[in-house]
Amino acid sequence: MSNIINRQITLASRPVGEPKDENFKLVESPVGKPADGEVLLHTLYLSLDPYMRGRMSDAKSYAQPVPIGGVMEGGTVSEVIISRHPDFMPGDFVAGYSGWQSYAIVKGSTLTKIDSASAPISTALGVLGMPGMTAYTGLLNIGQPKSGETVVVAAASGAVGGIVGQIAKIKGCRVIGIAGGKHKCDYVVKELGFDACLDHKDKNLAEQLKSACPKGIDVYFENVGGAVFEAVFPLLNDFARIPVCGLISNYNDTALPDGPNMVPLLMRAILTKRLLFQGFIVSDFASQRMDFIKDVSQWIREGKVKYREDIVDGLENAPKAFQGLLRGENFGKLLVRVGSK
Amino acid sequence: MSNIINRQITLASRPVGEPKDENFKLVESPVGKPADGEVLLHTLYLSLDPYMRGRMSDAKSYAQPVPIGGVMEGGTVSEVIISRHPDFMPGDFVAGYSGWQSYAIVKGSTLTKIDSASAPISTALGVLGMPGMTAYTGLLNIGQPKSGETVVVAAASGAVGGIVGQIAKIKGCRVIGIAGGKHKCDYVVKELGFDACLDHKDKNLAEQLKSACPKGIDVYFENVGGAVFEAVFPLLNDFARIPVCGLISNYNDTALPDGPNMVPLLMRAILTKRLLFQGFIVSDFASQRMDFIKDVSQWIREGKVKYREDIVDGLENAPKAFQGLLRGENFGKLLVRVGSK
Repeated sequence: MSNIINRQITLASRPVGEPKDENFKLVESPVGKPADGEVLLHTLYLSLDPYMRGRMSDAKSYAQPVPIGGVMEGGTVSEVIISRHPDFMPGDFVAGYSGWQSYAIVKGSTLTKIDSASAPISTALGVLGMPGMTAYTGLLNIGQPKSGETVVVAAASGAVGGIVGQIAKIKGCRVIGIAGGKHKCDYVVKELGFDACLDHKDKNLAEQLKSACPKGIDVYFENVGGAVFEAVFPLLNDFARIPVCGLISNYNDTALPDGPNMVPLLMRAILTKRLLFQGFIVSDFASQRMDFIKDVSQWIREGKVKYREDIVDGLENAPKAFQGLLRGENFGKLLVRVGSK
Repeated sequence: MSNIINRQITLASRPVGEPKDENFKLVESPVGKPADGEVLLHTLYLSLDPYMRGRMSDAKSYAQPVPIGGVMEGGTVSEVIISRHPDFMPGDFVAGYSGWQSYAIVKGSTLTKIDSASAPISTALGVLGMPGMTAYTGLLNIGQPKSGETVVVAAASGAVGGIVGQIAKIKGCRVIGIAGGKHKCDYVVKELGFDACLDHKDKNLAEQLKSACPKGIDVYFENVGGAVFEAVFPLLNDFARIPVCGLISNYNDTALPDGPNMVPLLMRAILTKRLLFQGFIVSDFASQRMDFIKDVSQWIREGKVKYREDIVDGLENAPKAFQGLLRGENFGKLLVRVGSK
């Protein structure tokens, strides 16, 4: 197999503000051979997700940053080419974390086999993967939506937000989405079945949100931050729950916004309205994986949960696609088709 | 009984910043007669608590403000003078919400009888009353302290903070108090048994707190805000819990502090460290009252929970004492002795 050339996208330098082309580097090198317990994988799909912006930075976070010169991290769906692990055979499809590269040698113990008969293999990176489980666990454990409550979901056409809103509908809530542009908003209402969807590019978002939430907001699933949070904040009801899942509007920030410092106002609202803010990442709820797969698979079969993929062809296009993701240019779960079966 | 003169302290005007003498007015009027189901009470103790600053303001909060000209609200321990309610007899001691006045006619259904044999009647306003229950319910339900964790308590010599820290010690935690001045800090360590207590008037509070919390902070019981919160914030561990009970350092603020706006930094920490911030008021946990009374009474008997009262004589001195409370001048649970048995 030594004649196979691996293509990798590495972190060339840490971005300041928006990631740029020069922060990434495409390198080629021969593929090695798997040792005992390892498998050689050919990447079919690479998932691009907002959290990767954090991995490019060396600011303290819940995970180590990608080192300079290291392969960019990322979830993948791959085909097994050579297996030296008893659980896998050539031709198997697996979900793992091969990163931004066309081949990878990994320990078999880090992989999950995908049943390609029950759903398209790409869903293991979306609705039935990390984004779907993020939506499911964050909404149900922290948001705790109750029938009749109002749930607001930012980035509502995205990989996480779309699932959050559909699960909230299943739970009997009034669900208001916020998305970028009329096209996405139409999709969120007509395809995903949200009660309404507002365009965050409109200048009067705060007023529109107030009209759309006449009984206030009981759950705000936060994956955006910034101006959307500011529109939501005054509408939060007593005992509102705010699962803090992401803050994509801040990921490229290089400085804090000008004052005044609103922290005392936020804390006062937490106190007087008895709000709950809780941050989480999907691995905090790892033990709920089987419940997630069972419930969401069933909801997909019943037509209650729909999803949309935005597929870019070619590993070399991953940096541009990722830059677009941070600007909200994708429409649905963003994937890179790296290889084909 | 019409020859009894009631003395009342009313809200003369809404304070801007610190409450001043002219915001209060002492008025006298004859006491009326209780109707069927009502009792006439003679106030023995009036509780002064930081939340009363909120009642003086007409900013939106969880409770209605005191109207201009209305009697200031407050928890009281009183003696029944005349009863037209079957549950009460003259001479009974009761806890209620008579407010800042020497006599009151109230519905019997709003009162709780006090067993004066089991504890001093004033404790119904402190360790066995609202402040004690605030400490107990907020710490145990939201803070959820686990043995070996580090708990930080602001206003540690106060009516709530002192109980929070002692319960955290009972739960096996390392407990660091923050209080104003050496005298209070000594009391917190030597009498209440905290592991350490820092003086928030020291300029290097942040450094001292870091030294006192070598393993970071798992629970921060927030009843102060401002500079103390800023010292705590960088030390919060992953999965730290912050029950938000009060923000006394902000209660007299007339404007937000100058920027930058730190909200994005706070939200980023909530996300990456998976913090939990939750506001509460004691009535949110009303159903836990019997557990609270049972547990804390036992801890007092066992010498595991101690308390201190700071008693001011005379209703006419309540406004000054309340102003001092907001400046941290009291030392222990602040009470006004309004009448004597």
